[in-house]
Amino acid sequence: MDPVVDAAERRTRELEERIAADPAAFRVLTGDRPTGPLHLGHYFGTLANRVRLQRLGVDVFVLIADYQVLTDRDVAERLSEHVEGLAADYLAIGIDPADATIFQHSAVPELNQLMLPFLSLVSVAELARNPTVKDEIAASSRPAVSGLMFTYPVHQAADILFCKADLVPVGKDQLPHQEVTRTVARRFNERYGPVFPVPDALLSDAPNLLGTDGRKMSKSRGNAVALSATPDDTARLLGRAVTDADRRITYEPDARPGVSNLVHLAALCQGRDPHDVAADIGDGGAAALKKVVIESVNEFLRPIRARRAELAADRTHLRRVLAEGNARARDVAARTLAEVREAMAA
Amino acid sequence: MDPVVDAAERRTRELEERIAADPAAFRVLTGDRPTGPLHLGHYFGTLANRVRLQRLGVDVFVLIADYQVLTDRDVAERLSEHVEGLAADYLAIGIDPADATIFQHSAVPELNQLMLPFLSLVSVAELARNPTVKDEIAASSRPAVSGLMFTYPVHQAADILFCKADLVPVGKDQLPHQEVTRTVARRFNERYGPVFPVPDALLSDAPNLLGTDGRKMSKSRGNAVALSATPDDTARLLGRAVTDADRRITYEPDARPGVSNLVHLAALCQGRDPHDVAADIGDGGAAALKKVVIESVNEFLRPIRARRAELAADRTHLRRVLAEGNARARDVAARTLAEVREAMAA
Repeated sequence: MDPVVDAAERRTRELEERIAADPAAFRVLTGDRPTGPLHLGHYFGTLANRVRLQRLGVDVFVLIADYQVLTDRDVAERLSEHVEGLAADYLAIGIDPADATIFQHSAVPELNQLMLPFLSLVSVAELARNPTVKDEIAASSRPAVSGLMFTYPVHQAADILFCKADLVPVGKDQLPHQEVTRTVARRFNERYGPVFPVPDALLSDAPNLLGTDGRKMSKSRGNAVALSATPDDTARLLGRAVTDADRRITYEPDARPGVSNLVHLAALCQGRDPHDVAADIGDGGAAALKKVVIESVNEFLRPIRARRAELAADRTHLRRVLAEGNARARDVAARTLAEVREAMAA
Repeated sequence: MDPVVDAAERRTRELEERIAADPAAFRVLTGDRPTGPLHLGHYFGTLANRVRLQRLGVDVFVLIADYQVLTDRDVAERLSEHVEGLAADYLAIGIDPADATIFQHSAVPELNQLMLPFLSLVSVAELARNPTVKDEIAASSRPAVSGLMFTYPVHQAADILFCKADLVPVGKDQLPHQEVTRTVARRFNERYGPVFPVPDALLSDAPNLLGTDGRKMSKSRGNAVALSATPDDTARLLGRAVTDADRRITYEPDARPGVSNLVHLAALCQGRDPHDVAADIGDGGAAALKKVVIESVNEFLRPIRARRAELAADRTHLRRVLAEGNARARDVAARTLAEVREAMAA
């Protein structure tokens, strides 16, 4: 076990107890880049958890990070479509704008003013040794690391701290980014007086679902079932999924990743244990397994898709939801910024 | 001669001709950090030039960079006093808010949103090799280079480009900073279409005035005459200035820096040639020289000080000037930001 992850997991269990006891005391910041439709990997990985927290009574802020993707030309071309699509996805899965705040990065310029004091609180050496930034740099096909990529953890600190979120749901790979946010909050408070909570990472126990090709689910690989896909598209995509020749269906993630991944997906949709789902299929082979998975997924997504279709047809409503969320976020940002200035000038 | 400076000087002469022919076609961005009262070094170094450009009919934007100094605790404590003091200095020397726009950094959050696309257009390697940043890093007493210092040239690009300034008056040492702004504008336009002018440096032929101790004029060294100083304080400060034992007063900057600096200051205040001023004093020695300098400075500053005293007494007026300038700058920033978004999403 990684001791950092271990500690984050212990801390998450402790936080979940405190959330259960007093949910209204917490604010969560979470969000997505509007690069295309959300899929089942997003749903079981993070969206379901947001709805769970919202229903417990936690104050949920959902950031549509439209400003960051503006630097990605291919995505930017269909940006407003992607932004509205994301809003439709959120509402369809149960994010309720009466309780939660859905807002766009670009609509809250005050948020970016936090970059100046925040950048003054971290050193270049600290930015350079952030492991997530290092990985992104290594994975990047660009010839040079941009200033935006380099300062990304500080932008993230502004995204989180502008609304004084105390909880940030993250995957294990994002823990180091999250650490920069905590450092910025701590140093600001030490230097200028207490303004920010030091936000905790809420480590997700998200299942590690794979795409139909056995690799990580990804919009760009076309290996993921979008929440908004039709039942036929869903059947076609899952019908092509990687399996193996053993007709006996079992749930053994390490030995049989392809088959186990489909079993796992069906189990998540049915809300059952994957071993039970596998036992039900028995000796039916890949064909029977796929039939079960397709039916389970389509059944599970049916109500979500119905709501989504209604929402997508009423763009005026979607735009109003966004406008209201943006106004609320901007209010919160202006208040925080005023406090920041006062603390710094005191 | 430095070929870069040489080229900038040629370019400046060319620009001055174009400004004279069509001043209304140009917008200038200039400004100061509100760290204390402006002094004679500022006046002859840059303030006089701003007033000259404004009177020619150039659209002058004057930035009070209050947000950057927020990270300097000692200054931040008296920030609003320093901001209003700066505004009073500007109006006293002849910046006219009916023609020029005086505004505060902190009042224009839209400006900072430009940091995201701009940071994406420069590489970490480019930021690291900026010579001005290198110097500041070397001169800094801090143990580590902050992210703010490292990204400073990009913040400056946002300060300049938000209002689409085409001219930036700079000293020779600021040419590399200016080059980052030009790079950002050029790359943005190439990538997303023409939005920004590529601003030219307007190299100042500012006289190299020294402080009374023979070092660079600086508020913190107490070696500079503030525009708002009393005549008595002025006399006391200049009376202590470094000179030499040769009773014959001459203008020989390299051989006799202390004496020549005082001659130069008197000449600037009298609008005469320093050799003539020196010849007039003749064999009078340091005492006669200082008497002339003190009288020239006090005479020169008398009307400025009178206007400044009136202005300082009417804080309501100063605040209204700032509020109007801020509103105008914010308008301009919002329009530029809308264009930026449109260009990037096109």
